[in-house]
Amino acid sequence: MTTHYITPLPGFTPTIGRLVGMLSYARRTLLGAVDGLSLEGLDHLHDAASNTIGALLAHAAAVERGYQILTFEERKPSASEEEPWLAALDLGEEGRRQLRGRELQSYVDELTETRQSTLAALAERDDDWLERPLVAAPEMNAHWAWFHVAEDEINHRGQIRWLRARLPQSEV
Amino acid sequence: MTTHYITPLPGFTPTIGRLVGMLSYARRTLLGAVDGLSLEGLDHLHDAASNTIGALLAHAAAVERGYQILTFEERKPSASEEEPWLAALDLGEEGRRQLRGRELQSYVDELTETRQSTLAALAERDDDWLERPLVAAPEMNAHWAWFHVAEDEINHRGQIRWLRARLPQSEV
Repeated sequence: MTTHYITPLPGFTPTIGRLVGMLSYARRTLLGAVDGLSLEGLDHLHDAASNTIGALLAHAAAVERGYQILTFEERKPSASEEEPWLAALDLGEEGRRQLRGRELQSYVDELTETRQSTLAALAERDDDWLERPLVAAPEMNAHWAWFHVAEDEINHRGQIRWLRARLPQSEV
Repeated sequence: MTTHYITPLPGFTPTIGRLVGMLSYARRTLLGAVDGLSLEGLDHLHDAASNTIGALLAHAAAVERGYQILTFEERKPSASEEEPWLAALDLGEEGRRQLRGRELQSYVDELTETRQSTLAALAERDDDWLERPLVAAPEMNAHWAWFHVAEDEINHRGQIRWLRARLPQSEV
């Protein structure tokens, strides 16, 4: 029986553990939504204004990296740091141009490595930290920032499921 | 300055309050995504397999009602209870046939009334309840169930944004 619980988790303070449960569920379902996709499927453009499924996966990793710097390093990413992720962060025209030709495993590896850093950093912090406003962005606290990482990923997972259901049969 | 915090909230136990913050953010952004939509826009079918934006709004309310019964009344909804929501729960063919001709305000009212009941019931419960497995579905706890309500809504909000960006200009 598959169980679905949000609870404190070993290795994290209680509220961070519950949040990690949500982040992990979002990630598991994202990876489930793209499982087995071919290169052609990842690069397929549904219409001229769409993002590819591959670009949406790259976006999830780029968003997570941005929030790592904002919350763990307590600063905004520099322009030179953001430059390699810019197409993935902004999606749209540059994303359609740059984010192509990567196999699924390459996206999965990037997501997995990024997530490992997130979990390691969250394990070193506590629930007081989670609730404090961010030094580099006091309009949000760390709890919202990491909820938002999951939330943005779930939003795009909805789009990925929709797009995948409409892939040409030759590209599934 | 718009602030984004997840924190305990007055009127709720601490962990329930944080969850309510997430539910409220998901709902606010869902309503933002459909703000000002015409009847034609709500009923527009992007393609033969799509759900209308209106059907996705009805789905969000139906899912929330189902989880109210499961978590607050500690039982599974009966067949006769589910019958009027079935098209909205399952979406697809029946949804395309039945869920049409409703103005935006009708969906918003249904969502708002449903949410008021949820918040009233959550205000009467505590963090121990939130963490316990559900009597009627012990494979999940109440915290996961209500996270899932937000998560399903966010998933479909992603689809709604995508669909709205592609409405024929006459229906926007």
